[in-house]
Amino acid sequence: MKQGDETSARRATVRDVAAQTGLSIATVSRVLNGRANVAPHTRDRVLSAMGSLGRQAPQRRGGRAERATGVFVRCPYVLTDYFGLIVSAVAEALEPHGLEVILNAGVAAQRDRVLPGLTGRRNVAGAVLILPPEPGAELVRLRDRGFPFVVVDPRTPPPRNLAAVSAAHFAGARRLTAHLIELGHRRIGIIGGPRDWLASENRFAGYLSPLADAGVLQAPELTRFVAEPTTELGHRAAAELLDLPDRPTALVAFNDKMAIGALRAAAERGLRVPDDLSVAGFDDIELAEACHPLLTTVRQPLGEMGRMAVNLLLRMLGGHHLEALHVELATELVVRDSTGPARS
Amino acid sequence: MKQGDETSARRATVRDVAAQTGLSIATVSRVLNGRANVAPHTRDRVLSAMGSLGRQAPQRRGGRAERATGVFVRCPYVLTDYFGLIVSAVAEALEPHGLEVILNAGVAAQRDRVLPGLTGRRNVAGAVLILPPEPGAELVRLRDRGFPFVVVDPRTPPPRNLAAVSAAHFAGARRLTAHLIELGHRRIGIIGGPRDWLASENRFAGYLSPLADAGVLQAPELTRFVAEPTTELGHRAAAELLDLPDRPTALVAFNDKMAIGALRAAAERGLRVPDDLSVAGFDDIELAEACHPLLTTVRQPLGEMGRMAVNLLLRMLGGHHLEALHVELATELVVRDSTGPARS
Repeated sequence: MKQGDETSARRATVRDVAAQTGLSIATVSRVLNGRANVAPHTRDRVLSAMGSLGRQAPQRRGGRAERATGVFVRCPYVLTDYFGLIVSAVAEALEPHGLEVILNAGVAAQRDRVLPGLTGRRNVAGAVLILPPEPGAELVRLRDRGFPFVVVDPRTPPPRNLAAVSAAHFAGARRLTAHLIELGHRRIGIIGGPRDWLASENRFAGYLSPLADAGVLQAPELTRFVAEPTTELGHRAAAELLDLPDRPTALVAFNDKMAIGALRAAAERGLRVPDDLSVAGFDDIELAEACHPLLTTVRQPLGEMGRMAVNLLLRMLGGHHLEALHVELATELVVRDSTGPARS
Repeated sequence: MKQGDETSARRATVRDVAAQTGLSIATVSRVLNGRANVAPHTRDRVLSAMGSLGRQAPQRRGGRAERATGVFVRCPYVLTDYFGLIVSAVAEALEPHGLEVILNAGVAAQRDRVLPGLTGRRNVAGAVLILPPEPGAELVRLRDRGFPFVVVDPRTPPPRNLAAVSAAHFAGARRLTAHLIELGHRRIGIIGGPRDWLASENRFAGYLSPLADAGVLQAPELTRFVAEPTTELGHRAAAELLDLPDRPTALVAFNDKMAIGALRAAAERGLRVPDDLSVAGFDDIELAEACHPLLTTVRQPLGEMGRMAVNLLLRMLGGHHLEALHVELATELVVRDSTGPARS
């Protein structure tokens, strides 16, 4: 735990900062936890006190800093079958190493500005940031301050020197679209995820690639993007595509939830899946095996993504040099009942 | 935070214990985290050192103990759409109070024996224990040591002086079964949850009650219980019930996942739902709106259960007297497409 010890020796306690600034411990905590309801000048006072205390924080008894045993896990989303599986795997992987999960989760956590305060926390050895909503520049700043962390499923292309674990979005979407082309589909609609997500961009590229290989000109009117990848928005986008005069014979959705919404839109229009329409998702969450028909999808190794992130973090904490900071884990096409031959 | 301050002043640090016992900090951590791979005599040495240090642990600088800001959240299951929603709500509710979630999650955590060590941890103010696998006596011991915690969805009937939040299992199951009786069903099969779970017992009682009111003698051959409430075991139990010579006209499952398994068993036998068979679940997780037909179920207020647990815990931490330690939150019947009139 070389890195942890080195940095924790320079850290001030919440009480030190409270004493120096004359603010209450609760207020200092609020700033360090990145809460929104703190006046800007209060925040500045705390951060500046932390800066000055950083170099003069008292050595603890015995002259040796206590080992930080917490790993900050930020997943500012509801822990559904998707995010919950990643967080569970992270928790299980950290536990044998005596490291504990300090969890920052739920959509309300998206308002928290927690990253700047992380380096000031004595009990935090490092972090796992899942689909972080923060701009890449903020992640780079955190890295530049020597704080060890790993990003899982980065939203934007991760800088070279930042550790990141993601699934093979491009390869997975390409394999899936090739499967539809093999089934004879040519008018393949896509319901993409949020435009500014890396996963969405890469899956879209993976969808375009085999179409181009097959000499099919992708029709712009068959493309939709949604702001949030929910069942409702998937349903709405699918309804638009299915109401086109020349409707698609297959739909590829950004994820399984949106594909479920597409199945519903098809059922409402009396379209049989897969006889009249093929539908495919991405993720292979439990929903994919509960819906009717069972969903063809691309399996993301969610548990393995969490375990790999912990593996990288442990090596960073151990002071090891990581040769490959970007890890992409393979995805797998899972063909079930929702895709079939195109009607001739 | 009266209670937290009082107890934390009596706590020894991991380093104190390591120094006293001659064991490494990692080993002491392992004992405190309840890991399995610790020799019994090592565990005893640590616990005995903690006991003796407890009364002589050095006061921290300034003579005042630092406020514990962690809440230990134990949910030794995979954070799926069910448990993940509770944990998300707990995290969101704690955050505005400057309290952090220290998460113990994932099925591997079921092996951890964490409760005895909780009182020895300076950074832990209290705990939320979700469906704790520990025997009631262990929870009582923790309570007797003055450690503040709240149980969500207790597995066994909680002792009177233990704070617990649960859903109205009995009332929900009764309402659901009454709905089926109103539709003309008399041969109603039940696929119950694990026999030793309080939720399972109460839902079973809620199923029996309206049958008795209607003068229907419940048929023992229509009853199944499973060891784990999974889709697979629900599928298997439903298959048994549907293969009876005189099969039920309706099936009530312990939860939505098991009901999804029952839908599959019905489809495999060419039974149309709800024309030939009504199927109902419990929980109202996202699956219930993804399956076909959409599932009639009983909604559990999962988010509210998490928020209520935090509310109770905060009041305990604040030194307030809680008049009602057991809180039961209302459930709601949600009628969708999987239940219909019995065939005459």
